[in-house]
Amino acid sequence: MTKMADLSPEHFIWEWKDRIATIRLNRPDRKNPLTFDSYAELRDTFRDMVYAEDVDVVIFASNGGNFCSGGDVHDIIGPLVDMDMKDLLAFTRMTGDLVKAMIGCGKPIIAAVDGVCVGAGAIIAMSSDLRLATPEAKCGFLFTRVGLAGCDMGACAMLPRIIGQGRAAELLYTGRTMSAAEGERWGFWNNLHDADALEAEAVKLAQRLAAGPTFAHGITKTQLNQEWNMGLDQAIEAEAQAQAICMQTTDFERAYRAFVAKEKPVFEGN
Amino acid sequence: MTKMADLSPEHFIWEWKDRIATIRLNRPDRKNPLTFDSYAELRDTFRDMVYAEDVDVVIFASNGGNFCSGGDVHDIIGPLVDMDMKDLLAFTRMTGDLVKAMIGCGKPIIAAVDGVCVGAGAIIAMSSDLRLATPEAKCGFLFTRVGLAGCDMGACAMLPRIIGQGRAAELLYTGRTMSAAEGERWGFWNNLHDADALEAEAVKLAQRLAAGPTFAHGITKTQLNQEWNMGLDQAIEAEAQAQAICMQTTDFERAYRAFVAKEKPVFEGN
Amino acid sequence: MTKMADLSPEHFIWEWKDRIATIRLNRPDRKNPLTFDSYAELRDTFRDMVYAEDVDVVIFASNGGNFCSGGDVHDIIGPLVDMDMKDLLAFTRMTGDLVKAMIGCGKPIIAAVDGVCVGAGAIIAMSSDLRLATPEAKCGFLFTRVGLAGCDMGACAMLPRIIGQGRAAELLYTGRTMSAAEGERWGFWNNLHDADALEAEAVKLAQRLAAGPTFAHGITKTQLNQEWNMGLDQAIEAEAQAQAICMQTTDFERAYRAFVAKEKPVFEGN
Repeated sequence: MTKMADLSPEHFIWEWKDRIATIRLNRPDRKNPLTFDSYAELRDTFRDMVYAEDVDVVIFASNGGNFCSGGDVHDIIGPLVDMDMKDLLAFTRMTGDLVKAMIGCGKPIIAAVDGVCVGAGAIIAMSSDLRLATPEAKCGFLFTRVGLAGCDMGACAMLPRIIGQGRAAELLYTGRTMSAAEGERWGFWNNLHDADALEAEAVKLAQRLAAGPTFAHGITKTQLNQEWNMGLDQAIEAEAQAQAICMQTTDFERAYRAFVAKEKPVFEGN
Repeated sequence: MTKMADLSPEHFIWEWKDRIATIRLNRPDRKNPLTFDSYAELRDTFRDMVYAEDVDVVIFASNGGNFCSGGDVHDIIGPLVDMDMKDLLAFTRMTGDLVKAMIGCGKPIIAAVDGVCVGAGAIIAMSSDLRLATPEAKCGFLFTRVGLAGCDMGACAMLPRIIGQGRAAELLYTGRTMSAAEGERWGFWNNLHDADALEAEAVKLAQRLAAGPTFAHGITKTQLNQEWNMGLDQAIEAEAQAQAICMQTTDFERAYRAFVAKEKPVFEGN
Repeated sequence: MTKMADLSPEHFIWEWKDRIATIRLNRPDRKNPLTFDSYAELRDTFRDMVYAEDVDVVIFASNGGNFCSGGDVHDIIGPLVDMDMKDLLAFTRMTGDLVKAMIGCGKPIIAAVDGVCVGAGAIIAMSSDLRLATPEAKCGFLFTRVGLAGCDMGACAMLPRIIGQGRAAELLYTGRTMSAAEGERWGFWNNLHDADALEAEAVKLAQRLAAGPTFAHGITKTQLNQEWNMGLDQAIEAEAQAQAICMQTTDFERAYRAFVAKEKPVFEGN
């Protein structure tokens, strides 16, 4: 197991407090575009997080009023135009690997989205477990507007499960912006909060999850993804096994003892 | 084929009228918790229902203003805390088997939910085909609050398909209550009705389904579950076969004859 | 590659303008029922469309205030009643093949629905990529009312992904009409427009998609269907490959050059 509290990444901002890690991109003057470097470092960070013993929840936050403007046109799209297939596939696999790493990191991720949230930024929000936003959040899967398909980093698989196949098709074919109100109504955003309250609300939610049972939360995350394309019978058996594992944690016993004693349980993540 | 009209279960209430069976849990003073015994007897009843020739629709109803408070803390959670893995898995498989039996019973199940509907109670509602509720219905997948994961009895597979992946994640990670208004807006409840009208509405809907074509309804149920994780082409071929079977029923011919005669068809379930 | 501009089908109306094809059924006096002939000719047309070099988008439009009343009772249901299993399966496979051909045709399909849209008509709308409707649109999966199951032409697989499992179950078990307002709220209709504006809105949306990047739109369509039952990791890898293909199109480069030149990109579909 590793400790991540004192991580000092080069290409994004990392904050750590009370077992909650906060990530934010660090070029607010340009609405926080991604670069080859930040993609790779984010991927590696989420991969390492599987073994982190001091992180329970991750907040992917905004910076300077915006979340992320996607792959930088100059730093990323320009070079891609000149690449051969081998290098293109290496790039699209790296971006996909960020999503796989987020899905596989073992901790709930809360996206806290203000302002611009487009392209790969929208994908990062989509790949988080929970999503809070401000009324000013503008979310767009705008791949089509740069000549590409809507199938970027898992969008054709994941977005339909979040907002429905028809609404996802519209966003992916047209690249149009989804307003914050639409996103809330369609189930993309779990809640909307004013910009000055957004981060406090994300922290409050993170604290609630960090209060545990964190081992069980990790299993919830695993199963939400693991059962994605299982048959119903197989999913039910998989949950019988997964929940039996959770029933052997001390947190389960702690909850029972607290209930009997009419107290609030204090979970310890084991 | 068996007859179930006169069933007299020990651990829940069974009513039968006009080919509609109504089940309700029977400890209203404690908001109808489940016990090891009622789990097992419900599972066996739904398994037997596959062969019942006198039941067309099932209503899973409330009792004393509440639906179900989930697994009883004293009768179930207490003993689980002391079990070894073999017995824990036997328990989680039994609860999963209740869901499998509901899914496989061959008859549409209508949940009619008033008041408390939490834990395994929420799962029973989720595993029903249609869901009516009152504005007072409080539905919570509160496994996390007893130290467990959200993956209970198929919830990580089924809940996202009903209300969307993002909303399901929120309910399963936090264990918070879904209000009746949220549940209606999100597609969990098909309709809300005042408490004094709930049961009559459930019966009306059940009568509509019991009026047939009941053989076809059984096939609809089979296919909704069977196609859960099929590819699109495979699902379309599966439906070509399933619907061709239905076209050889006399109910299909009855509908045609009635249409030609400008009458209302009277279906007979064959 | 073939040209479809001058197609003159026998059993439906075909219009072509600016690379947008419009299909409408042609018996408005009877609310546009389908027949054996129109089913087969539609299937063949969508199959040919894969190779059409002069069609980018398809509008499936209404005619005389209605979209489609489904399989004709006299022309289709009557004969089916007397068929043996071999012929019944040939029929249900043909109808399923229409859906498969729509899914596989490689171009986005926009349904523009006014008035009656029931039975196989509802399936055609469901199988389109985008769906516009009028407030008068009445959509019903009414198979159960003719003695059949809800599993027709892929409905048990596709409808739950569009509007959620619970709402789909209600429509498929009861055969009741979904109002236009419900359909919009549930994500079945992307937008509602007044009847006199519907077709212009459909054309506007089609023009937007026809403006490209059309090769990428074809890949979006492929992946939305291809990833239907993939696991998450497999879907992400599939998108890495599919998007890398799109990054080798000249349209991707055109978008980049236009961005750098502060111009609007002109896509050419390659």
